[in-house]
Amino acid sequence: MNAKIRLYVDHPLGVGQSVPLTREQAHYLFGVMRLAVGAPVALFNGRDGEWLAEVSEAGKRGGLLTCKEQTRPLQLPPDLWLLFAPIKKARTDFIVEKAAEMGAARIIPVQTDFTNSERIRQDRLQAHAIEAAEQCGGTFVPEVTELQKLDRLLADWPEGRQLMFCDEAEAGSALRLAAGEKGRPWAILIGPEGGFSDRERARLSGLPFAHVVSLGPRILRADTAAVAAMTVWQQALGDWA
Amino acid sequence: MNAKIRLYVDHPLGVGQSVPLTREQAHYLFGVMRLAVGAPVALFNGRDGEWLAEVSEAGKRGGLLTCKEQTRPLQLPPDLWLLFAPIKKARTDFIVEKAAEMGAARIIPVQTDFTNSERIRQDRLQAHAIEAAEQCGGTFVPEVTELQKLDRLLADWPEGRQLMFCDEAEAGSALRLAAGEKGRPWAILIGPEGGFSDRERARLSGLPFAHVVSLGPRILRADTAAVAAMTVWQQALGDWA
Repeated sequence: MNAKIRLYVDHPLGVGQSVPLTREQAHYLFGVMRLAVGAPVALFNGRDGEWLAEVSEAGKRGGLLTCKEQTRPLQLPPDLWLLFAPIKKARTDFIVEKAAEMGAARIIPVQTDFTNSERIRQDRLQAHAIEAAEQCGGTFVPEVTELQKLDRLLADWPEGRQLMFCDEAEAGSALRLAAGEKGRPWAILIGPEGGFSDRERARLSGLPFAHVVSLGPRILRADTAAVAAMTVWQQALGDWA
Repeated sequence: MNAKIRLYVDHPLGVGQSVPLTREQAHYLFGVMRLAVGAPVALFNGRDGEWLAEVSEAGKRGGLLTCKEQTRPLQLPPDLWLLFAPIKKARTDFIVEKAAEMGAARIIPVQTDFTNSERIRQDRLQAHAIEAAEQCGGTFVPEVTELQKLDRLLADWPEGRQLMFCDEAEAGSALRLAAGEKGRPWAILIGPEGGFSDRERARLSGLPFAHVVSLGPRILRADTAAVAAMTVWQQALGDWA
Protein backbone atom coordinates (compact mmCIF):
# COMPACT_ATOMS: atom_id res chain seq x y z
CA MET A 1 0.00 0.00 0.00
CA ASN A 2 1.71 3.13 -1.20
CA ALA A 3 0.38 6.55 -0.24
CA LYS A 4 0.34 9.09 -3.06
CA ILE A 5 -0.73 11.92 -0.80
CA ARG A 6 1.54 13.43 1.86
CA LEU A 7 -0.09 15.55 4.49
CA TYR A 8 1.28 17.67 7.31
CA VAL A 9 -0.76 17.44 10.50
CA ASP A 10 -0.30 19.21 13.81
CA HIS A 11 -0.98 16.10 15.88
CA PRO A 12 1.11 13.35 17.53
CA LEU A 13 1.79 10.31 15.34
CA GLY A 14 2.34 6.74 16.59
CA VAL A 15 1.09 3.18 16.14
CA GLY A 16 -2.73 3.09 16.26
CA GLN A 17 -2.91 6.86 16.80
CA SER A 18 -6.14 8.49 15.56
CA VAL A 19 -5.60 11.77 13.75
CA PRO A 20 -8.62 14.10 13.33
CA LEU A 21 -8.78 16.15 10.15
CA THR A 22 -9.60 19.82 9.84
CA ARG A 23 -12.41 20.89 7.56
CA GLU A 24 -9.87 22.00 4.91
CA GLN A 25 -7.98 18.71 5.07
CA ALA A 26 -11.23 16.73 4.80
CA HIS A 27 -12.28 18.82 1.82
CA TYR A 28 -8.91 18.19 0.12
CA LEU A 29 -8.77 14.44 0.82
CA PHE A 30 -12.42 13.53 0.23
CA GLY A 31 -13.75 16.33 -1.97
CA VAL A 32 -10.78 17.05 -4.22
CA MET A 33 -8.75 13.81 -4.13
CA ARG A 34 -11.83 11.54 -3.70
CA LEU A 35 -10.26 9.26 -1.10
CA ALA A 36 -12.54 6.65 0.51
CA VAL A 37 -12.36 4.80 3.83
CA GLY A 38 -9.29 2.52 3.79
CA ALA A 39 -7.25 4.73 1.44
CA PRO A 40 -3.60 5.29 2.37
CA VAL A 41 -2.18 8.71 3.29
CA ALA A 42 1.39 9.57 4.33
CA LEU A 43 1.48 11.81 7.41
CA PHE A 44 4.19 13.85 9.08
CA ASN A 45 4.10 16.44 11.81
CA GLY A 46 7.69 17.68 11.80
CA ARG A 47 8.53 15.69 14.97
CA ASP A 48 7.64 11.98 14.62
CA GLY A 49 8.91 11.10 11.14
CA GLU A 50 6.64 9.91 8.34
CA TRP A 51 3.75 7.53 8.97
CA LEU A 52 1.52 5.46 6.78
CA ALA A 53 -2.09 6.08 7.81
CA GLU A 54 -5.48 4.93 6.56
CA VAL A 55 -8.71 6.83 6.23
CA SER A 56 -11.01 5.45 8.95
CA GLU A 57 -13.79 8.07 8.77
CA ALA A 58 -14.56 10.34 5.82
CA GLY A 59 -17.01 13.23 6.13
CA LYS A 60 -17.75 16.56 4.50
CA ARG A 61 -16.61 18.58 7.47
CA GLY A 62 -13.99 16.32 8.96
CA GLY A 63 -12.66 12.83 9.18
CA LEU A 64 -10.27 10.53 10.95
CA LEU A 65 -7.02 8.87 9.89
CA THR A 66 -5.43 5.96 11.77
CA CYS A 67 -1.65 5.58 11.88
CA LYS A 68 -0.35 2.16 10.81
CA GLU A 69 3.45 2.22 10.77
CA GLN A 70 6.37 4.59 10.58
CA THR A 71 7.71 4.69 7.03
CA ARG A 72 10.61 7.11 7.63
CA PRO A 73 12.32 8.46 10.72
CA LEU A 74 12.48 12.18 11.42
CA GLN A 75 15.30 13.70 9.37
CA LEU A 76 16.46 16.92 11.01
CA PRO A 77 18.30 19.48 8.90
CA PRO A 78 21.59 20.97 10.11
CA ASP A 79 21.29 23.81 12.64
CA LEU A 80 21.11 26.53 10.00
CA TRP A 81 19.00 29.68 10.21
CA LEU A 82 18.11 31.65 7.10
CA LEU A 83 17.71 35.39 7.72
CA PHE A 84 16.31 37.40 4.84
CA ALA A 85 14.79 40.82 4.23
CA PRO A 86 11.24 40.44 2.85
CA ILE A 87 10.85 41.69 -0.70
CA LYS A 88 7.95 41.52 -3.14
CA LYS A 89 5.28 38.99 -2.18
CA ALA A 90 6.01 36.32 -4.80
CA ARG A 91 9.76 36.41 -4.18
CA THR A 92 9.33 36.35 -0.40
CA ASP A 93 7.10 33.26 -0.73
CA PHE A 94 9.72 31.77 -2.97
CA ILE A 95 12.56 32.33 -0.49
CA VAL A 96 10.58 30.60 2.26
CA GLU A 97 9.76 27.66 -0.02
CA LYS A 98 13.39 27.32 -1.10
CA ALA A 99 14.73 27.62 2.46
CA ALA A 100 12.49 24.72 3.51
CA GLU A 101 13.60 22.63 0.51
CA MET A 102 17.28 23.39 1.00
CA GLY A 103 17.23 22.36 4.65
CA ALA A 104 17.05 25.47 6.81
CA ALA A 105 16.10 24.72 10.42
CA ARG A 106 14.59 28.17 11.06
CA ILE A 107 13.54 30.99 8.76
CA ILE A 108 13.75 34.53 10.13
CA PRO A 109 12.41 37.52 8.16
CA VAL A 110 14.45 40.57 9.18
CA GLN A 111 13.88 44.28 8.89
CA THR A 112 16.93 46.12 7.58
CA ASP A 113 17.54 49.79 6.79
CA PHE A 114 16.50 49.23 3.16
CA THR A 115 13.63 46.79 3.80
CA ASN A 116 10.39 48.10 2.38
CA SER A 117 7.89 45.97 4.25
CA GLU A 118 6.90 46.82 7.79
CA ARG A 119 5.01 43.61 8.33
CA ILE A 120 4.71 40.10 6.97
CA ARG A 121 1.98 37.47 7.00
CA GLN A 122 3.75 34.99 9.23
CA ASP A 123 0.92 32.42 8.97
CA ARG A 124 1.01 32.50 5.18
CA LEU A 125 4.79 32.10 5.07
CA GLN A 126 4.59 29.21 7.55
CA ALA A 127 2.02 27.56 5.28
CA HIS A 128 4.49 27.86 2.37
CA ALA A 129 7.18 26.10 4.43
CA ILE A 130 4.70 23.30 5.23
CA GLU A 131 3.70 22.95 1.59
CA ALA A 132 7.35 22.73 0.53
CA ALA A 133 7.91 19.91 3.04
CA GLU A 134 4.76 18.12 1.81
CA GLN A 135 5.90 18.36 -1.81
CA CYS A 136 9.53 17.52 -1.31
CA GLY A 137 9.23 14.53 0.99
CA GLY A 138 10.59 16.30 4.05
CA THR A 139 9.74 15.10 7.55
CA PHE A 140 10.76 18.37 9.19
CA VAL A 141 9.16 21.80 8.83
CA PRO A 142 11.26 24.87 9.63
CA GLU A 143 9.64 27.48 11.84
CA VAL A 144 9.02 30.84 10.16
CA THR A 145 9.31 33.52 12.83
CA GLU A 146 7.71 36.95 12.99
CA LEU A 147 9.56 39.86 11.38
CA GLN A 148 12.49 40.92 13.57
CA LYS A 149 14.69 43.99 13.49
CA LEU A 150 18.16 43.02 12.25
CA ASP A 151 19.83 45.34 14.78
CA ARG A 152 17.96 43.75 17.66
CA LEU A 153 18.70 40.24 16.45
CA LEU A 154 22.42 41.00 16.18
CA ALA A 155 22.45 42.61 19.62
CA ASP A 156 20.97 39.45 21.18
CA TRP A 157 22.95 37.05 18.95
CA PRO A 158 23.27 33.56 20.49
CA GLU A 159 26.76 32.66 21.63
CA GLY A 160 28.60 30.30 19.30
CA ARG A 161 26.35 30.75 16.26
CA GLN A 162 28.30 31.77 13.15
CA LEU A 163 26.87 34.14 10.54
CA MET A 164 27.51 33.90 6.80
CA PHE A 165 26.73 37.20 5.19
CA CYS A 166 26.53 37.66 1.45
CA ASP A 167 27.29 41.14 0.24
CA GLU A 168 27.46 42.03 -3.40
CA ALA A 169 29.62 45.04 -2.56
CA GLU A 170 32.27 42.57 -1.37
CA ALA A 171 33.11 41.55 -4.91
CA GLY A 172 36.59 40.19 -4.38
CA SER A 173 36.38 38.14 -1.22
CA ALA A 174 36.57 34.43 -1.81
CA LEU A 175 34.68 31.82 0.11
CA ARG A 176 36.35 31.15 3.41
CA LEU A 177 34.29 28.55 5.20
CA ALA A 178 36.82 26.40 6.99
CA ALA A 179 35.81 22.78 7.42
CA GLY A 180 36.69 23.25 11.07
CA GLU A 181 33.47 25.23 11.44
CA LYS A 182 31.44 22.11 10.67
CA GLY A 183 28.90 20.96 13.24
CA ARG A 184 28.48 24.42 14.75
CA PRO A 185 25.24 26.38 14.59
CA TRP A 186 25.15 28.81 11.68
CA ALA A 187 22.99 31.46 10.08
CA ILE A 188 22.93 32.88 6.57
CA LEU A 189 21.91 36.52 6.07
CA ILE A 190 20.58 37.64 2.68
CA GLY A 191 20.23 41.39 2.21
CA PRO A 192 17.32 43.25 0.63
CA GLU A 193 17.18 44.21 -3.07
CA GLY A 194 18.78 47.57 -2.31
CA GLY A 195 21.65 45.92 -0.42
CA PHE A 196 22.76 46.75 3.11
CA SER A 197 23.24 50.33 4.28
CA ASP A 198 26.79 51.56 4.97
CA ARG A 199 25.94 51.54 8.67
CA GLU A 200 24.78 47.91 8.54
CA ARG A 201 27.74 46.87 6.43
CA ALA A 202 30.16 48.40 8.91
CA ARG A 203 28.39 46.74 11.82
CA LEU A 204 28.27 43.33 10.15
CA SER A 205 31.93 43.46 9.17
CA GLY A 206 32.92 44.18 12.73
CA LEU A 207 31.10 41.22 14.28
CA PRO A 208 33.46 38.48 15.45
CA PHE A 209 31.04 35.71 14.36
CA ALA A 210 30.37 37.13 10.87
CA HIS A 211 31.94 35.66 7.70
CA VAL A 212 31.57 37.55 4.43
CA VAL A 213 31.34 35.34 1.36
CA SER A 214 31.10 36.17 -2.32
CA LEU A 215 28.52 34.65 -4.64
CA GLY A 216 30.40 35.30 -7.86
CA PRO A 217 30.90 38.23 -10.21
CA ARG A 218 27.24 38.73 -11.21
CA ILE A 219 24.63 40.57 -9.17
CA LEU A 220 22.03 38.07 -7.94
CA ARG A 221 18.47 38.82 -6.95
CA ALA A 222 17.74 38.11 -3.28
CA ASP A 223 15.83 34.88 -4.00
CA THR A 224 18.65 33.54 -6.20
CA ALA A 225 21.22 34.55 -3.60
CA ALA A 226 19.29 32.64 -0.93
CA VAL A 227 19.42 29.35 -2.85
CA ALA A 228 23.04 29.89 -3.95
CA ALA A 229 24.19 30.74 -0.41
CA MET A 230 22.46 27.70 1.08
CA THR A 231 24.07 25.52 -1.60
CA VAL A 232 27.51 26.89 -0.76
CA TRP A 233 26.91 26.31 2.95
CA GLN A 234 25.38 22.84 2.62
CA GLN A 235 28.28 21.70 0.47
CA ALA A 236 30.99 23.07 2.76
CA LEU A 237 29.48 22.64 6.21
CA GLY A 238 26.07 20.99 5.98
CA ASP A 239 24.71 17.54 5.20
CA TRP A 240 25.55 17.38 1.48
CA ALA A 241 28.98 15.88 2.09
CA MET B 1 25.71 61.52 -15.05
CA ASN B 2 24.53 58.19 -13.76
CA ALA B 3 21.90 56.21 -15.65
CA LYS B 4 19.23 54.65 -13.46
CA ILE B 5 17.65 52.77 -16.33
CA ARG B 6 19.35 49.86 -18.09
CA LEU B 7 17.96 48.81 -21.43
CA TYR B 8 18.71 45.94 -23.75
CA VAL B 9 18.70 46.92 -27.43
CA ASP B 10 19.25 44.80 -30.50
CA HIS B 11 21.48 47.34 -32.20
CA PRO B 12 25.25 47.99 -32.49
CA LEU B 13 26.71 50.25 -29.78
CA GLY B 14 29.74 52.51 -30.18
CA VAL B 15 30.89 56.14 -29.77
CA GLY B 16 28.36 58.49 -31.35
CA GLN B 17 26.16 55.60 -32.46
CA SER B 18 22.44 56.47 -32.83
CA VAL B 19 20.10 53.84 -31.46
CA PRO B 20 16.45 53.95 -32.58
CA LEU B 21 13.83 52.87 -30.04
CA THR B 22 10.90 50.55 -30.62
CA ARG B 23 7.43 51.74 -29.78
CA GLU B 24 7.47 49.69 -26.56
CA GLN B 25 10.82 51.09 -25.48
CA ALA B 26 9.69 54.66 -26.23
CA HIS B 27 6.52 54.07 -24.20
CA TYR B 28 8.56 52.75 -21.27
CA LEU B 29 11.21 55.50 -21.30
CA PHE B 30 9.02 58.50 -22.06
CA GLY B 31 5.53 57.44 -20.99
CA VAL B 32 6.27 55.36 -17.88
CA MET B 33 9.66 56.65 -16.71
CA ARG B 34 9.09 60.23 -17.98
CA LEU B 35 12.59 60.73 -19.39
CA ALA B 36 13.23 63.92 -21.37
CA VAL B 37 15.80 64.79 -24.05
CA GLY B 38 19.28 64.70 -22.50
CA ALA B 39 18.43 62.07 -19.87
CA PRO B 40 20.97 59.27 -19.39
CA VAL B 41 20.20 55.60 -20.16
CA ALA B 42 22.55 52.62 -19.84
CA LEU B 43 22.45 50.37 -22.93
CA PHE B 44 23.74 46.89 -23.67
CA ASN B 45 23.18 44.54 -26.58
CA GLY B 46 24.89 41.38 -25.35
CA ARG B 47 27.93 42.01 -27.59
CA ASP B 48 29.43 45.46 -27.09
CA GLY B 49 29.48 45.88 -23.31
CA GLU B 50 27.54 48.58 -21.46
CA TRP B 51 27.26 52.12 -22.83
CA LEU B 52 26.10 55.39 -21.42
CA ALA B 53 23.66 56.96 -23.85
CA GLU B 54 21.53 60.10 -23.86
CA VAL B 55 18.01 60.65 -25.10
CA SER B 56 18.33 62.73 -28.28
CA GLU B 57 14.75 62.43 -29.56
CA ALA B 58 11.67 61.52 -27.54
CA GLY B 59 8.35 60.73 -29.19
CA LYS B 60 5.17 58.82 -28.47
CA ARG B 61 5.90 56.10 -30.99
CA GLY B 62 9.66 56.07 -31.03
CA GLY B 63 12.80 57.96 -30.19
CA LEU B 64 16.54 58.05 -30.53
CA LEU B 65 19.38 57.52 -28.09
CA THR B 66 22.98 58.55 -28.74
CA CYS B 67 25.86 56.51 -27.30
CA LYS B 68 28.42 58.54 -25.34
CA GLU B 69 30.99 56.19 -23.81
CA GLN B 70 31.48 52.57 -22.86
CA THR B 71 30.95 52.17 -19.11
CA ARG B 72 31.70 48.44 -18.87
CA PRO B 73 33.28 45.92 -21.22
CA LEU B 74 31.40 42.82 -22.33
CA GLN B 75 31.60 40.20 -19.57
CA LEU B 76 31.09 36.76 -21.07
CA PRO B 77 29.95 33.93 -18.79
CA PRO B 78 31.79 30.59 -18.81
CA ASP B 79 30.86 28.20 -21.66
CA LEU B 80 28.03 26.56 -19.70
CA TRP B 81 24.73 25.37 -21.17
CA LEU B 82 21.69 24.80 -18.98
CA LEU B 83 19.40 22.04 -20.23
CA PHE B 84 16.08 21.73 -18.43
CA ALA B 85 12.70 20.09 -18.97
CA PRO B 86 9.94 22.73 -19.04
CA ILE B 87 7.49 22.49 -16.15
CA LYS B 88 4.66 24.74 -15.04
CA LYS B 89 4.75 28.21 -16.59
CA ALA B 90 5.83 30.21 -13.55
CA ARG B 91 8.61 27.76 -12.65
CA THR B 92 9.84 27.56 -16.25
CA ASP B 93 10.05 31.36 -16.38
CA PHE B 94 11.89 31.23 -13.12
CA ILE B 95 14.48 28.72 -14.35
CA VAL B 96 15.26 30.90 -17.37
CA GLU B 97 15.58 34.01 -15.20
CA LYS B 98 17.87 32.22 -12.75
CA ALA B 99 20.00 30.66 -15.49
CA ALA B 100 20.64 34.14 -16.92
CA GLU B 101 21.49 35.51 -13.47
CA MET B 102 23.78 32.61 -12.57
CA GLY B 103 25.80 32.93 -15.77
CA ALA B 104 24.62 30.31 -18.26
CA ALA B 105 25.85 30.96 -21.80
CA ARG B 106 22.95 29.12 -23.47
CA ILE B 107 19.60 27.87 -22.18
CA ILE B 108 18.12 24.79 -23.85
CA PRO B 109 14.61 23.55 -22.99
CA VAL B 110 14.57 19.78 -23.55
CA GLN B 111 11.78 17.29 -24.03
CA THR B 112 12.27 14.17 -21.90
CA ASP B 113 10.13 11.05 -21.48
CA PHE B 114 8.33 12.63 -18.51
CA THR B 115 8.10 16.20 -19.85
CA ASN B 116 4.51 17.34 -20.02
CA SER B 117 4.81 20.27 -22.38
CA GLU B 118 4.99 19.70 -26.11
CA ARG B 119 5.84 23.28 -26.89
CA ILE B 120 7.25 26.40 -25.27
CA ARG B 121 7.00 30.10 -26.01
CA GLN B 122 10.62 30.65 -26.99
CA ASP B 123 10.12 34.41 -27.51
CA ARG B 124 8.64 34.84 -24.03
CA LEU B 125 11.45 32.86 -22.40
CA GLN B 126 14.05 34.89 -24.32
CA ALA B 127 12.39 38.06 -23.01
CA HIS B 128 12.78 36.72 -19.46
CA ALA B 129 16.49 36.17 -20.02
CA ILE B 130 16.82 39.75 -21.33
CA GLU B 131 14.91 41.15 -18.36
CA ALA B 132 17.15 39.24 -15.94
CA ALA B 133 20.23 40.75 -17.60
CA GLU B 134 18.67 44.24 -17.47
CA GLN B 135 17.89 43.86 -13.76
CA CYS B 136 21.11 42.24 -12.68
CA GLY B 137 23.63 44.43 -14.46
CA GLY B 138 24.69 41.78 -16.95
CA THR B 139 26.21 42.76 -20.29
CA PHE B 140 25.56 39.34 -21.86
CA VAL B 141 22.21 37.69 -22.65
CA PRO B 142 22.10 33.90 -22.98
CA GLU B 143 20.26 32.56 -26.01
CA VAL B 144 17.14 30.53 -25.18
CA THR B 145 16.74 27.88 -27.89
CA GLU B 146 13.62 26.17 -29.15
CA LEU B 147 12.48 23.01 -27.36
CA GLN B 148 14.71 20.09 -28.36
CA LYS B 149 14.32 16.36 -27.84
CA LEU B 150 16.83 15.17 -25.24
CA ASP B 151 17.55 11.99 -27.23
CA ARG B 152 18.36 13.97 -30.35
CA LEU B 153 20.53 16.43 -28.45
CA LEU B 154 22.54 13.62 -26.87
CA ALA B 155 22.93 11.85 -30.21
CA ASP B 156 24.44 15.01 -31.74
CA TRP B 157 26.40 15.97 -28.62
CA PRO B 158 29.34 18.28 -29.39
CA GLU B 159 32.74 16.70 -28.93
CA GLY B 160 34.56 17.76 -25.78
CA ARG B 161 31.53 19.19 -23.94
CA GLN B 162 31.02 17.64 -20.51
CA LEU B 163 27.57 17.03 -19.02
CA MET B 164 26.69 17.35 -15.33
CA PHE B 165 23.51 15.49 -14.65
CA CYS B 166 21.62 15.78 -11.39
CA ASP B 167 19.54 12.80 -10.49
CA GLU B 168 17.70 12.53 -7.21
CA ALA B 169 17.68 8.75 -7.57
CA GLU B 170 21.49 8.88 -7.26
CA ALA B 171 21.28 9.65 -3.58
CA GLY B 172 24.70 8.47 -2.53
CA SER B 173 27.05 9.78 -5.15
CA ALA B 174 29.20 12.65 -4.00
CA LEU B 175 30.24 15.57 -6.11
CA ARG B 176 33.13 14.61 -8.34
CA LEU B 177 33.99 17.64 -10.41
CA ALA B 178 37.76 17.54 -10.77
CA ALA B 179 39.42 20.92 -11.05
CA GLY B 180 41.19 19.51 -14.11
CA GLU B 181 37.90 19.87 -15.98
CA LYS B 182 38.12 23.64 -15.64
CA GLY B 183 38.06 25.73 -18.79
CA ARG B 184 36.26 23.06 -20.83
CA PRO B 185 32.76 23.52 -22.23
CA TRP B 186 30.08 22.08 -19.97
CA ALA B 187 26.35 21.57 -19.75
CA ILE B 188 24.06 20.98 -16.77
CA LEU B 189 20.95 18.84 -17.24
CA ILE B 190 18.02 19.26 -14.83
CA GLY B 191 15.31 16.61 -15.06
CA PRO B 192 11.55 17.17 -15.02
CA GLU B 193 9.42 17.03 -11.86
CA GLY B 194 8.80 13.31 -12.40
CA GLY B 195 12.51 12.59 -12.76
CA PHE B 196 14.14 10.76 -15.66
CA SER B 197 12.73 7.51 -17.04
CA ASP B 198 14.71 4.30 -16.45
CA ARG B 199 15.59 4.29 -20.13
CA GLU B 200 16.95 7.85 -19.99
CA ARG B 201 18.80 7.18 -16.75
CA ALA B 202 20.52 4.15 -18.27
CA ARG B 203 21.44 6.11 -21.37
CA LEU B 204 22.78 9.09 -19.42
CA SER B 205 24.84 6.89 -17.11
CA GLY B 206 26.50 5.21 -20.08
CA LEU B 207 27.64 8.42 -21.75
CA PRO B 208 31.41 8.95 -21.50
CA PHE B 209 31.00 12.73 -21.07
CA ALA B 210 28.32 12.54 -18.35
CA HIS B 211 29.03 13.17 -14.66
CA VAL B 212 26.34 12.40 -12.08
CA VAL B 213 26.32 14.70 -9.08
CA SER B 214 24.21 14.71 -5.94
CA LEU B 215 22.43 17.79 -4.63
CA GLY B 216 22.09 16.58 -1.06
CA PRO B 217 19.71 14.32 0.85
CA ARG B 218 16.50 16.31 0.25
CA ILE B 219 14.38 16.19 -2.88
CA LEU B 220 14.59 19.54 -4.67
CA ARG B 221 12.07 20.98 -7.08
CA ALA B 222 13.44 21.46 -10.59
CA ASP B 223 13.79 25.23 -10.24
CA THR B 224 15.68 24.89 -6.95
CA ALA B 225 17.88 22.17 -8.45
CA ALA B 226 18.76 24.46 -11.37
CA VAL B 227 20.10 27.21 -9.09
CA ALA B 228 21.84 24.75 -6.76
CA ALA B 229 23.51 22.87 -9.64
CA MET B 230 24.73 26.09 -11.25
CA THR B 231 26.13 27.20 -7.87
CA VAL B 232 28.00 23.91 -7.48
CA TRP B 233 29.40 24.19 -11.00
CA GLN B 234 30.32 27.89 -10.81
CA GLN B 235 32.17 27.30 -7.55
CA ALA B 236 34.10 24.27 -8.76
CA LEU B 237 34.67 25.05 -12.44
CA GLY B 238 33.23 28.44 -13.33
CA ASP B 239 34.09 32.06 -12.65
CA TRP B 240 33.32 32.20 -8.93
CA ALA B 241 36.83 31.22 -7.92
